[in-house]
Amino acid sequence: MISVNYYDPELGGWQQQQVSRLPANARHTPPLWLDLQQASAAEEQQLLQDLGIAATMAEDFSKTRHPPKFEAVGDFNLLILRAYADADFSELTENAQLNLLFSQDILITKLHCSQQLLRSQLQPQLTQPGNNPISDWVKQLTLTVSASYLEKLLVFEDELGELEDRMLHKGNDELMTMMMRYRSVLRKVSRNLAYQKDLFADALFEEQHSLLRRFALADLRDFYEKFERLHSMTEMYYDQLSDLVQGYLSTTSHQINERMKVLTMVSSIFIPLTFVAGIYGMNFSNMPELELEWGYYLTLGFMLAVGLGSLIWFKHLKWW
Amino acid sequence: MISVNYYDPELGGWQQQQVSRLPANARHTPPLWLDLQQASAAEEQQLLQDLGIAATMAEDFSKTRHPPKFEAVGDFNLLILRAYADADFSELTENAQLNLLFSQDILITKLHCSQQLLRSQLQPQLTQPGNNPISDWVKQLTLTVSASYLEKLLVFEDELGELEDRMLHKGNDELMTMMMRYRSVLRKVSRNLAYQKDLFADALFEEQHSLLRRFALADLRDFYEKFERLHSMTEMYYDQLSDLVQGYLSTTSHQINERMKVLTMVSSIFIPLTFVAGIYGMNFSNMPELELEWGYYLTLGFMLAVGLGSLIWFKHLKWW
Amino acid sequence: MISVNYYDPELGGWQQQQVSRLPANARHTPPLWLDLQQASAAEEQQLLQDLGIAATMAEDFSKTRHPPKFEAVGDFNLLILRAYADADFSELTENAQLNLLFSQDILITKLHCSQQLLRSQLQPQLTQPGNNPISDWVKQLTLTVSASYLEKLLVFEDELGELEDRMLHKGNDELMTMMMRYRSVLRKVSRNLAYQKDLFADALFEEQHSLLRRFALADLRDFYEKFERLHSMTEMYYDQLSDLVQGYLSTTSHQINERMKVLTMVSSIFIPLTFVAGIYGMNFSNMPELELEWGYYLTLGFMLAVGLGSLIWFKHLKWW
Amino acid sequence: MISVNYYDPELGGWQQQQVSRLPANARHTPPLWLDLQQASAAEEQQLLQDLGIAATMAEDFSKTRHPPKFEAVGDFNLLILRAYADADFSELTENAQLNLLFSQDILITKLHCSQQLLRSQLQPQLTQPGNNPISDWVKQLTLTVSASYLEKLLVFEDELGELEDRMLHKGNDELMTMMMRYRSVLRKVSRNLAYQKDLFADALFEEQHSLLRRFALADLRDFYEKFERLHSMTEMYYDQLSDLVQGYLSTTSHQINERMKVLTMVSSIFIPLTFVAGIYGMNFSNMPELELEWGYYLTLGFMLAVGLGSLIWFKHLKWW
Amino acid sequence: MISVNYYDPELGGWQQQQVSRLPANARHTPPLWLDLQQASAAEEQQLLQDLGIAATMAEDFSKTRHPPKFEAVGDFNLLILRAYADADFSELTENAQLNLLFSQDILITKLHCSQQLLRSQLQPQLTQPGNNPISDWVKQLTLTVSASYLEKLLVFEDELGELEDRMLHKGNDELMTMMMRYRSVLRKVSRNLAYQKDLFADALFEEQHSLLRRFALADLRDFYEKFERLHSMTEMYYDQLSDLVQGYLSTTSHQINERMKVLTMVSSIFIPLTFVAGIYGMNFSNMPELELEWGYYLTLGFMLAVGLGSLIWFKHLKWW
Ligand SMILES: [Mg+2]
Ligand SMILES: [Mg+2]
Ligand SMILES: [Mg+2]
Ligand SMILES: [Mg+2]
Ligand SMILES: [Mg+2]
Ligand SMILES: [Mg+2]
Ligand SMILES: [Mg+2]
Ligand SMILES: [Mg+2]
Ligand SMILES: [Mg+2]
Ligand SMILES: [Mg+2]
Ligand SMILES: [Mg+2]
Ligand SMILES: [Mg+2]
Ligand SMILES: [Mg+2]
Ligand SMILES: [Mg+2]
Ligand SMILES: [Mg+2]
Ligand SMILES: [Mg+2]
Ligand SMILES: [Mg+2]
Ligand SMILES: [Mg+2]
Ligand SMILES: [Mg+2]
Ligand SMILES: [Mg+2]
Ligand SMILES: [Mg+2]
Ligand SMILES: [Mg+2]
Ligand SMILES: [Mg+2]
Ligand SMILES: [Mg+2]
Ligand SMILES: [Mg+2]
Ligand SMILES: [Mg+2]
Ligand SMILES: [Mg+2]
Ligand SMILES: [Mg+2]
Ligand SMILES: [Mg+2]
Ligand SMILES: [Mg+2]
Ligand SMILES: [Mg+2]
Repeated sequence: MISVNYYDPELGGWQQQQVSRLPANARHTPPLWLDLQQASAAEEQQLLQDLGIAATMAEDFSKTRHPPKFEAVGDFNLLILRAYADADFSELTENAQLNLLFSQDILITKLHCSQQLLRSQLQPQLTQPGNNPISDWVKQLTLTVSASYLEKLLVFEDELGELEDRMLHKGNDELMTMMMRYRSVLRKVSRNLAYQKDLFADALFEEQHSLLRRFALADLRDFYEKFERLHSMTEMYYDQLSDLVQGYLSTTSHQINERMKVLTMVSSIFIPLTFVAGIYGMNFSNMPELELEWGYYLTLGFMLAVGLGSLIWFKHLKWW
Repeated sequence: MISVNYYDPELGGWQQQQVSRLPANARHTPPLWLDLQQASAAEEQQLLQDLGIAATMAEDFSKTRHPPKFEAVGDFNLLILRAYADADFSELTENAQLNLLFSQDILITKLHCSQQLLRSQLQPQLTQPGNNPISDWVKQLTLTVSASYLEKLLVFEDELGELEDRMLHKGNDELMTMMMRYRSVLRKVSRNLAYQKDLFADALFEEQHSLLRRFALADLRDFYEKFERLHSMTEMYYDQLSDLVQGYLSTTSHQINERMKVLTMVSSIFIPLTFVAGIYGMNFSNMPELELEWGYYLTLGFMLAVGLGSLIWFKHLKWW
Repeated sequence: MISVNYYDPELGGWQQQQVSRLPANARHTPPLWLDLQQASAAEEQQLLQDLGIAATMAEDFSKTRHPPKFEAVGDFNLLILRAYADADFSELTENAQLNLLFSQDILITKLHCSQQLLRSQLQPQLTQPGNNPISDWVKQLTLTVSASYLEKLLVFEDELGELEDRMLHKGNDELMTMMMRYRSVLRKVSRNLAYQKDLFADALFEEQHSLLRRFALADLRDFYEKFERLHSMTEMYYDQLSDLVQGYLSTTSHQINERMKVLTMVSSIFIPLTFVAGIYGMNFSNMPELELEWGYYLTLGFMLAVGLGSLIWFKHLKWW
Repeated sequence: MISVNYYDPELGGWQQQQVSRLPANARHTPPLWLDLQQASAAEEQQLLQDLGIAATMAEDFSKTRHPPKFEAVGDFNLLILRAYADADFSELTENAQLNLLFSQDILITKLHCSQQLLRSQLQPQLTQPGNNPISDWVKQLTLTVSASYLEKLLVFEDELGELEDRMLHKGNDELMTMMMRYRSVLRKVSRNLAYQKDLFADALFEEQHSLLRRFALADLRDFYEKFERLHSMTEMYYDQLSDLVQGYLSTTSHQINERMKVLTMVSSIFIPLTFVAGIYGMNFSNMPELELEWGYYLTLGFMLAVGLGSLIWFKHLKWW
Repeated sequence: MISVNYYDPELGGWQQQQVSRLPANARHTPPLWLDLQQASAAEEQQLLQDLGIAATMAEDFSKTRHPPKFEAVGDFNLLILRAYADADFSELTENAQLNLLFSQDILITKLHCSQQLLRSQLQPQLTQPGNNPISDWVKQLTLTVSASYLEKLLVFEDELGELEDRMLHKGNDELMTMMMRYRSVLRKVSRNLAYQKDLFADALFEEQHSLLRRFALADLRDFYEKFERLHSMTEMYYDQLSDLVQGYLSTTSHQINERMKVLTMVSSIFIPLTFVAGIYGMNFSNMPELELEWGYYLTLGFMLAVGLGSLIWFKHLKWW
């Protein structure tokens, strides 16, 4: 079922209608919002064909998984955006994707998002239509997408500061695993944001870009700056996590070195001495030293000399 | 043998003919597909010469191993593409290479690919000729090449997610070796995709590019976007593998540190104590301490004191 | 309360007035400095609306946390700058942010900075107005922002040199932690400086940039060069810290190797020998070797041979 | 001695003449090849001055060590190329350098290369002069330079594949040293190739480049592509070696961890037990436990309990 | 004191005069070299003001520490260059800085350099003035700056080759420390060279650059190429040092692994055996095994079995 939303000036409100195929006169009552959420693949295909959407654009619009992009052929613009649906960056369970196809008069949406709240936010707001109702809708949706990242990134900044303190104080495997997971998610987020940033950068730097016909330059610059800022934050957080991972490695290595120093000194001093004690603990019947009156004391003296000698040697090597 | 394929409107179907040298009137019945799969080097050379192909272009077309490229001289365009023939990214056994030379009327193909299925897919589809039969063929082949990567990359994404979970839970040498192999293959794939991406980017950004005369702008943008997306996915997977390798190193290092701590503490406490026990296990005839009534208990007490002292010292050092 | 500052030529001095809403004739006595430090959000909003500031610009101006940016719509320019408020780079406790909105006649400032001294420096200097009083103020503030970084970076250079010497001589965990903290702060500083550098680079390289109407080219180049130099210094210090961290890792690893060599040699020689001694320390009643006249000497000889053999073997392996 | 080579149409062949200074009428019989291989510095200087070569160009031409470059002043072009003279990439013993100075009519060469075969290949081929004899020579020499890298890189690819297999199976210090040497050489090779690639890229992308007057665009593109491909291969091989080095580090670290686990468990279990045995091996006269009938069995039981307890503890810690 | 140097055609030589303030007619006898080496800050400021130097330029000229830069305002050009004053790259004790301010007629120099020889080289050469005496001086000084790097870099190349051999054969901590110091210096050198390279690149790529009015294009290209080559060499040496550091880490790690293997095998075999020997070395009165006739032999056999079993197990694990 295709959900058709149109404004009825007489009733002064928005009307919704479920159709399986758009009637021929539908294009005559702009602004029109066609929600394909519940449309079957066949209905969708039929609709795109009826509206004369170009083949490559129709193909991309129908994809449930496509990186963010913008394309314009004829009257229609295709805009694919990706929002952030998860609660934080410890796991990326889905790429919430919003596929938009819009002309001067019609907005067609197809939202792929299983997260309840975000799904409700990524709906065009049905208020009294202004001068550019379609552009207003697309702007509102774009800002919602951007906000879905920002709120989680701002929370993450504090989390990262805390993580840093904990790692520098006393790291452990769980923190490391968490950092690895964050890094993996931030990398994927960064890719989505880079596509979205570039998409609006194109609109700003290319002359006669199709988006310039739909939006004020100030709005496009705002979109670009928002995604650029999100991308730059994501990259910085990723890089700071990398620094932490690397610093942890160096710190750990230093601690291994310290323990190694203790172990090697203790072992190097006492293992040979224990061997000497072991020799005089042997039960051979003919061991003349054992009978010497000063044998025990000579042995102890020898052991002390060896022990102290080792200590001085390690001191000389600057091991402590 | 050169395999000549042409459309016979009277018979309403495609005819195939095996010739060793193209007859002079062959150029008069477009569209023509010349398959050089079974042509000898001499036949190939002869054909290219007969068609007046420029020397540098002919040389590149005849190479069995050349990175993807596009070149246009005169009426003819040279397009070298590389598909992905292996089942996954654990090993790269061959670079499936498709060399295309085409003008308005003729398509010459030379396919280097030992993988059965892919070889059959990388053939022009012999359907009723449309307006631009040669362009349609090249488009179909380009999309097939792109699809040969995409299907394996999508499978790999799941595999990578699983690999990540297993590495973060409990890594081992086999997983590491697998990751190293993946990285090596992805690097080579990335290079091939980068060339193919750049090739179509040139077509988009240069004015009066030869490909613009053969293809609609929407098609070229579609080719570019497909290869750009493949390249960006490949790079991201490679980078995620690198992150895993590096994270594994840090985790491992931390575990060594933990074990080292245990080993050093156990050794530092018991090795000196064992030495003391070894001393009183010596068999010297004159060892007065042995005869003391409280000698054993004093020794045990001393050992306990040393052991506890070490423990307290390690606690003071924050080793546990 | 909005603090209005205007120059009274008759009194020959600056007058300050606290208003909650700007009177309509306020725009008629340029130059005017409106300090929103103590203005409520509502007053601020009202003022921006009264002055007809564009919505996106007003939104950014009102943010307490926004990366450095420049924007121009209509008569007004928005400039957001970030100074460095902390005493050194061991911790970043706040992003001192200066939001400026200015036209030919009016300068509106909103300073977010808790550090006393810097807050007093980031005020427009109230001297006799020149030809371009607003531009002079903005220039003075920009140079103050730049200076807030430079003084700390110059101090840091010496600190870094010393840190380098200490790490190369004898690193420890505290130095490592300090380096990790420096790196984290320098990364964030670098991002702020990069935005500020790019902002003035845009002014230099774009023709008809709004800043060109307010400032001499020499001034803009000076701003750009100052921030470029600061950014380049920050990046270099960050990279040198990274080199130190990595070098420390290699040095530490080498030392572990050295200690390991000693430990392994001592253990490999004496542990087996101690085992042999342990065998002849066993109390079995039937141990014929113990009764041999030369048993003890043979055993000692055997031990010596094993010990020397091990030493020669390690020498052969080039362990020392 | 300057070796002058000119074509004598009457004799229908090439004549060679050794002069110490070029006669004034020499320029009148193009094409002329002046080989300065055996010329003294003074003769070289004199010749360049006689031909009116610009000072900066003459200076560079006379250098035995200069990175690849192109320069054009007046009628003359300076082209410095570097070939690869060594048999493989395990050591870089020399930078085979070919200094070319050419106009429409004259080619002056100075070759620095001690490798016999390559020296003979880097000579202009003396065949019947065509339309552009000088350009034909330069083209032939450029292709020879490019080929000197390609043949070794193609061999290296197989070597690298094998190296990879051996490292992933069982690395050792010799392989590591070899990889380090390869990396060092590939880095230097990459720099030379980058200069050569950029040199021809300039010719392609700059309008009215001097090389465009001497060579067909197809030839220049061919030169560029050849060096670009060589550079990209070199970089990829270098990066793959880096990946191997890093992967080896992770694998090694994992193995250390495994051995550490064994060592720590064995030591932690048996060293304390040995201490206990050592206690009851002491020879104090007053040790009541020794006289207990069940003393030995109680001790064995205690040891078993401690040993099993440790095992269970290690199991609990997931050490095995 | 300002040292004024001017050419007196009547005397046919250079005259030097010490003044505290330049006389008004000084500008009338070009070429003039004003050496501010011994000028006080006040004299310097006065002179720059008298000559009408722009404020931003005067400020930069007076700095004792400023990265290399070029600026042109009005008739005057400011050029700040940095030479390399130290004997090698083991330590960077100063940034030898040459501040130049020049017009068609006057050259003002301020040299900051404590190294004797370099200071004498960085003086304009007082020869008979040519057509462009000021440009000739600036050219000579620029080439001297470039040469101050090149001679040390060429020496360093050999040193690096030797260092590489020594590290790959048998690294030690001193070599590592040396490499860390080299890296730190090369990084700073690279930054200085990058600024100097970019400065002349701007002159080449910008149309109507001020330097184009003072120098022939061939000279500017020569300056650019010299600094570009120096920068590229510096970067390559830095990167090769990084490769060595990283390779050393991998090699060291491998050696630790090897020693660990030996230690773990020796310990795992002999420590349990020693424990068994310790058990039968205990002095309990009731230990029936001790009285068995075959007790000793059975124990030896058991020990042999355990030892061999361990060996076989380690062999099975492929530890050797
Ligand atoms: Mg990325
Ligand atoms: Mg960024
Ligand atoms: Mg990154
Ligand atoms: Mg970044
Ligand atoms: Mg990093
Ligand atoms: Mg790393
Ligand atoms: Mg790549
Ligand atoms: Mg990419
Ligand atoms: Mg990469
Ligand atoms: Mg990437
Ligand atoms: Mg990475
Ligand atoms: Mg950064
Ligand atoms: Mg920088
Ligand atoms: Mg930098
Ligand atoms: Mg960086
Ligand atoms: Mg680095
Ligand atoms: Mg590292
Ligand atoms: Mg390089
Ligand atoms: Mg490359
Ligand atoms: Mg590359
Ligand atoms: Mg590289
Ligand atoms: Mg690399
Ligand atoms: Mg890499
Ligand atoms: Mg690494
Ligand atoms: Mg640098
Ligand atoms: Mg470079
Ligand atoms: Mg570089
Ligand atoms: Mg670098
Ligand atoms: Mg490197
Ligand atoms: Mg590294
Ligand atoms: Mg590392």
